[in-house]
Amino acid sequence: MWCRGRNNTDRSCRFHNLCFSPSSNTFLFLHGAETIISGVPDERYSPALLDLSSVPNHNTQYFHYTDVPVHGLFHFKKVIRYRGVHFMFNRFNPSNLMHVFHDDVMPVFYTLLQQGLLDLETVTSTARLVFLEGWQHGEYFDMYGWLSRERPLLKDALMKHDNDALVCFDDAFLGLSKETTWYQYGFNEPQGPLQTTKVTGSHIKVFTDALLRTLNVSNNAQQLKGQAQGQQEVKGHPQACLFTRDSNRLILNEGDLISTIAQVSGFTTVKISLDDLFNSLYPHMYGTNPNIDDVHSNVDDINPNIDDAVYNRIEYERSLRLLLENVRKCKVVVGMHGSLLTLLMFLLPGSVVVELYPYAVNPGHYTPYKTLANIPGMQLTYKAWRNNMPENTVAHADAAPEQGGIVHLSVKEQQNIVGSHEVPRHLCCSDPEWLYRIYQDTVVDIPSFHAVLQSAITDSQNTHDSNVQIRTFESNAIPGNVQNAKCERTITNDVFGIKISWQPPWNLVFFASNLDKKYEVWIQGIGQEDYGAWMLEMTEYLFTEGLNMNNRYRAWVRCLVGGKIGPFVSIHPC
Amino acid sequence: MWCRGRNNTDRSCRFHNLCFSPSSNTFLFLHGAETIISGVPDERYSPALLDLSSVPNHNTQYFHYTDVPVHGLFHFKKVIRYRGVHFMFNRFNPSNLMHVFHDDVMPVFYTLLQQGLLDLETVTSTARLVFLEGWQHGEYFDMYGWLSRERPLLKDALMKHDNDALVCFDDAFLGLSKETTWYQYGFNEPQGPLQTTKVTGSHIKVFTDALLRTLNVSNNAQQLKGQAQGQQEVKGHPQACLFTRDSNRLILNEGDLISTIAQVSGFTTVKISLDDLFNSLYPHMYGTNPNIDDVHSNVDDINPNIDDAVYNRIEYERSLRLLLENVRKCKVVVGMHGSLLTLLMFLLPGSVVVELYPYAVNPGHYTPYKTLANIPGMQLTYKAWRNNMPENTVAHADAAPEQGGIVHLSVKEQQNIVGSHEVPRHLCCSDPEWLYRIYQDTVVDIPSFHAVLQSAITDSQNTHDSNVQIRTFESNAIPGNVQNAKCERTITNDVFGIKISWQPPWNLVFFASNLDKKYEVWIQGIGQEDYGAWMLEMTEYLFTEGLNMNNRYRAWVRCLVGGKIGPFVSIHPC
Repeated sequence: MWCRGRNNTDRSCRFHNLCFSPSSNTFLFLHGAETIISGVPDERYSPALLDLSSVPNHNTQYFHYTDVPVHGLFHFKKVIRYRGVHFMFNRFNPSNLMHVFHDDVMPVFYTLLQQGLLDLETVTSTARLVFLEGWQHGEYFDMYGWLSRERPLLKDALMKHDNDALVCFDDAFLGLSKETTWYQYGFNEPQGPLQTTKVTGSHIKVFTDALLRTLNVSNNAQQLKGQAQGQQEVKGHPQACLFTRDSNRLILNEGDLISTIAQVSGFTTVKISLDDLFNSLYPHMYGTNPNIDDVHSNVDDINPNIDDAVYNRIEYERSLRLLLENVRKCKVVVGMHGSLLTLLMFLLPGSVVVELYPYAVNPGHYTPYKTLANIPGMQLTYKAWRNNMPENTVAHADAAPEQGGIVHLSVKEQQNIVGSHEVPRHLCCSDPEWLYRIYQDTVVDIPSFHAVLQSAITDSQNTHDSNVQIRTFESNAIPGNVQNAKCERTITNDVFGIKISWQPPWNLVFFASNLDKKYEVWIQGIGQEDYGAWMLEMTEYLFTEGLNMNNRYRAWVRCLVGGKIGPFVSIHPC
Repeated sequence: MWCRGRNNTDRSCRFHNLCFSPSSNTFLFLHGAETIISGVPDERYSPALLDLSSVPNHNTQYFHYTDVPVHGLFHFKKVIRYRGVHFMFNRFNPSNLMHVFHDDVMPVFYTLLQQGLLDLETVTSTARLVFLEGWQHGEYFDMYGWLSRERPLLKDALMKHDNDALVCFDDAFLGLSKETTWYQYGFNEPQGPLQTTKVTGSHIKVFTDALLRTLNVSNNAQQLKGQAQGQQEVKGHPQACLFTRDSNRLILNEGDLISTIAQVSGFTTVKISLDDLFNSLYPHMYGTNPNIDDVHSNVDDINPNIDDAVYNRIEYERSLRLLLENVRKCKVVVGMHGSLLTLLMFLLPGSVVVELYPYAVNPGHYTPYKTLANIPGMQLTYKAWRNNMPENTVAHADAAPEQGGIVHLSVKEQQNIVGSHEVPRHLCCSDPEWLYRIYQDTVVDIPSFHAVLQSAITDSQNTHDSNVQIRTFESNAIPGNVQNAKCERTITNDVFGIKISWQPPWNLVFFASNLDKKYEVWIQGIGQEDYGAWMLEMTEYLFTEGLNMNNRYRAWVRCLVGGKIGPFVSIHPC
């Protein structure tokens, strides 16, 4: 067992022979004469060895195993071996598209990539995914399939083995990368952007490009860019898109809104909803997906919607391809707050986004998509529009509580909620006032929306299309080592000196010309304690001050560019 | 680029597209719109991103790369791509068997294993090794070959590409595991055991078993054990072995010594030297290998001994197989201090080792093989014998300095060295007094040797053959979670109480019966701040004290075994 990381939130472990006992629903680790355990803390139950989800330190997402000596094998009638590499984790909320991408699919993609388990060119993984959270397939099951050599395995499949069997995995890897998540859901403080996120536009681009490649969606960034600048082509006309929801949080004047978007953007405007993905695939389910926003902490409460019988990956991929091809053409997106906006990940640079919020919901308090749009390198222009007119909202007090119903509350509580003009900040996951407000339907006020969209498009046109490539280099690059550095002893007019010369680092020419470039030279007499240090702009210099021709000298040179310091190069003594 | 680790000594990095410029002898990392850099510190030149050797923080072993924007590719006439995964490192001292195993081969083996790049059953790696230290093949080149899918690549091969070419590796992994090294060579303090080592007998066993499997050496631990207890078998007779050196540090009375070993041990005694490995393979080299002990800090000074032309892997493997089959039969090893003693790694548990030291060399100061023999789980009995008789030593004052010659020193310095009776502690790598003494030849004093060997064998017979398997479990195992824990409300004789019950952890039966086993129960009234805690030996208890029937209660239970604390299990409130 090899683990790396300092605590459960950043630890990952690779097991050779990790076993699972269906009868006790427990993972077992066998100890014998060839057991090697590396990187496991003594206090591995405080609170856990590692997190099974990218949502950090959530107490329903902990991985534990139980120690057993190898002779414990004799307690089992048979051992079932799973060959090959298995990557095991918990899907956090497999029924919500935002959670599927943000918590699971992108973290799995980057974990596999970092662990050398995914070939980026062919987008094929040598690992099989294993979902340990205990759900059935769920409607987004296939969204994970492209990351796994074989069809992902459910916990249920492990539990179905005989009670007297031990299920052993030759190679198991656990511990999701949290590097790309950008949002926290309000378990310890009200929801908001993750302050520690390291995600960049490059992460999003590498991930979405890979998914688009597996679906054979033509990666038409260049063509569309050209068209946006006026070079019309037949294929891939840019368009404006309205992202809507079909069963709740409705836009009640979609027709007016679409006309307005078309008028302001100048693009043909199309409507996109999740039904575009699911309608063709799961017709019997149409309308039954509640699109629940909040996270259920007890997965047992949620029933599986899809079972094995309706599995149809080819049809699913066709639907997803059509959806994403459509999304890639959106130069302007207007969308009701909701998980469909996760698809902003697939927009081309330079696109414009306006997110719509129902009455009494403060856009600044619920920002998963704003945060996504503003990730450095995404190059999207994002604005929020909020319904400020109580007469334009339709609430559903009598809906089920998880969809915003409040009739189960006391009259006083109901009055408080209905009388409030803004949902106060709250924790996850079932604040009734929040649910009441977020499940409202909205008549979008056209004049105020028009102004927001117009200003977003204007902002976007004024934004200089910064060159991401150069920015990445400038922000990360350090000058390399100086080259061919040497030292020569000289005597000129009876004055002893040493001439130090070198050539610039190999990468110096690539730094911006306006950056300050200089060299630092250190000289030390051999056997002496002190040394002299000089800053120079040239690449050769004759030093004489304080030097003694009876001494030999060591010297070091390094390059500094705009505050970035290159490595010291040690020069052969002279 | 994905790096993990806190500093250069424990960092490892995986690169997708790591390039090398032969003209500037520099690794380049290209920055573009899809560049992702993870885990790289801002100060990556202070002192380095990572160590290329398992010898930590040695300034000749640093890995650096130079940042270049992708358009820097146009500076090269062509790009040569190396497909597949490459594991790159520096061999530290490829001409010394101890260094080859300890610094390189075992660390490479464990790095590949930890990174999922080595299949333990078939002992085949998907990675190709790349040696970056700059040496030619060296006489132990083939000792690395079994770890690599293809023949290892020398730095020289990269340098031989055209100067206007860029050499790019699709996937490169760097950063050797330091987990298994046990010795430091005296760069900062006199040489000695690494205090931080984590190596165990399991590491040695898994490694040597894998090498023996690749050579088809029958792993006859069980047969030999049986024979040692008197059950004779035809194959694999146990024997005693004298490990000698052929060109220096000679034993001058080998015949007497072999007779003594045979007499004391009762085993047939055979002589084993490195020539057994090399004689058949490289006959033209016989006797030219100086077996230099100390580490050269400047690899440029050392000339390659073997070049491509003499490569003969099949012959090499045959020789190595014969050697290791022979070593596996040694129940008693007597050996002159030197790198051949690295083969102690291959001894069976219960074997006996006596290491011989020349005159004026303190065995306690040079302990790479003592440390190896005493690794927990190796189950070897180790003793040192030292020549205390100046009349029994033959020094070589007129040898080359690196082989102990001192005639290049002043008369005074020579007198000091010859007059000393023990080499003072010293740093690596060229202390003339140390080299003078360690390259002495020795007449082994039979009576004192007889006593040391006899006492080692007696100690070995008195050592209880502890069960490694059980010891590993006891030292690492923690009790698992209690099972089926529940809480029931009761009223007995008008007294309200709650009954908490559970079943022991699944692994409790595997802990030694003499260990203290108990349970800790915490109970907290819902909405209350304080809680009660109890220690119990039973698995069910009726709590009444201070409980109020108007409250509901939460409870937690965990198991403690001999000071090891299992995880708290949370019980459904009652």
